[in-house]
Amino acid sequence: MKKKEKVAQEVGNFMAERDFFARSLGIEILEIRPGYSRVGMPIAPYMVNGLKIAHGGAIFSLGDFAFAAASNSYGQVAVALSMDIHFLRAPETGAYLTAEALEVRRGRRTGLYRISVIESSGRQIAEMHGMAFIKDEEFIS
Amino acid sequence: MKKKEKVAQEVGNFMAERDFFARSLGIEILEIRPGYSRVGMPIAPYMVNGLKIAHGGAIFSLGDFAFAAASNSYGQVAVALSMDIHFLRAPETGAYLTAEALEVRRGRRTGLYRISVIESSGRQIAEMHGMAFIKDEEFIS
Amino acid sequence: MKKKEKVAQEVGNFMAERDFFARSLGIEILEIRPGYSRVGMPIAPYMVNGLKIAHGGAIFSLGDFAFAAASNSYGQVAVALSMDIHFLRAPETGAYLTAEALEVRRGRRTGLYRISVIESSGRQIAEMHGMAFIKDEEFIS
Amino acid sequence: MKKKEKVAQEVGNFMAERDFFARSLGIEILEIRPGYSRVGMPIAPYMVNGLKIAHGGAIFSLGDFAFAAASNSYGQVAVALSMDIHFLRAPETGAYLTAEALEVRRGRRTGLYRISVIESSGRQIAEMHGMAFIKDEEFIS
Repeated sequence: MKKKEKVAQEVGNFMAERDFFARSLGIEILEIRPGYSRVGMPIAPYMVNGLKIAHGGAIFSLGDFAFAAASNSYGQVAVALSMDIHFLRAPETGAYLTAEALEVRRGRRTGLYRISVIESSGRQIAEMHGMAFIKDEEFIS
Repeated sequence: MKKKEKVAQEVGNFMAERDFFARSLGIEILEIRPGYSRVGMPIAPYMVNGLKIAHGGAIFSLGDFAFAAASNSYGQVAVALSMDIHFLRAPETGAYLTAEALEVRRGRRTGLYRISVIESSGRQIAEMHGMAFIKDEEFIS
Repeated sequence: MKKKEKVAQEVGNFMAERDFFARSLGIEILEIRPGYSRVGMPIAPYMVNGLKIAHGGAIFSLGDFAFAAASNSYGQVAVALSMDIHFLRAPETGAYLTAEALEVRRGRRTGLYRISVIESSGRQIAEMHGMAFIKDEEFIS
Repeated sequence: MKKKEKVAQEVGNFMAERDFFARSLGIEILEIRPGYSRVGMPIAPYMVNGLKIAHGGAIFSLGDFAFAAASNSYGQVAVALSMDIHFLRAPETGAYLTAEALEVRRGRRTGLYRISVIESSGRQIAEMHGMAFIKDEEFIS
């Protein structure tokens, strides 16, 4: 058990350092455990679309990172097969968003994660799913 | 007909200028017509995840922009309700990606768009759907 | 409040009687409240595919009915725009399945519902989402 | 090549005979080739929901069967991981529906199929995706 927690932590550190796209968006890992992660990102002023509301791509990227962290947390490489996102509300300007990824099911080869994107006020912004394919590679070699 | 094409063009110009998130990613509109758009983006070196492959969030953001352009192309505001993305192949490093959004169906209140993300080599990278809700507002007032 | 509960009950009775496809599958409403429903169905011996496992179409139909009940429970007609289903485990032969639909968000025109299909043993069989479009019609006139 | 076509044909025959749920709905295979299938079903009078329109579960079941036929057509067992469905139009009463499944991508372990459900009039009723997991088992032993 302790060992598994440590692996998850190492995967988190690795991703926080090497996921350059997530870094460019200001995404940070708030918590990571086997099969679980919570990550956060402030909606920067430039993260808007032409309608001046938070960009779907930015919201998705946050949720995608939570999914990647949770699905890779066992130390085995997991890649995304399919994802879906449902947009519920537009976040307020300057909001700090968190995305929490929960493991719905993990088999030997695939895993399903449910991701919830939430504003600091507690309002849910988006609901997502990620289906991962689990490879035979170790995440950190 | 001519009028409609002009509106689509104006919406495209507006989005290219005001969608700051898309601009920050280097996304450009290559073509826009009523119910259709094709957009492009070079995968920049920083757009990778911890596994050094193109970030799902970057690929999604490109497809999302194509969807937004096509669904707003009539000049009426359309917002995303739900989207799904299926990842087919990892693009090559430094690839230039295009995303093409086709209108599957447009009703008075909702519209479904199918989006294909393609590498310059012609290989398909991702397949997406976007379901839009059409508002009573004009895109450009 | 009492009034709303009564409307939900009436919608449930109406659907249980008039949804002939659900009836043909042996689906029954176990509980219905505003924005919520729980329905059940025994997996009949004929509800299998060529691999002798419970048919995806039967599992989907159960979840779809839970979604329809919950999204129509306010008495206003709601129709499905998009749905997604993730298959987690094959149910055991002869299992009794229940599907529970929860309201994630309901706006004036659209509503998102999360549906969980569960076996009597407690194991989750499938996870679904339904996005509904809400019309200006009353369900029961 | 000839061999592959023959395997697909055999899988089709097997499914047409053993998929009891599809049979109960009157679904028939119209065409099957490696990575492709087209199947049909008349909307029977009982296949309606409480609103008297064709049941989403019946439409899904048809598309699901097309997906199963196409994804198993190589003779290797493929099971559904995730599916999405977008409802475009209600079919007319008594319509004969066909569902065509196209292979978007097939890897060693997973395959994505796009399914289109069409009315005899040519109008598209629904658009679906199915993501399959490919097992190490042969379909027909």
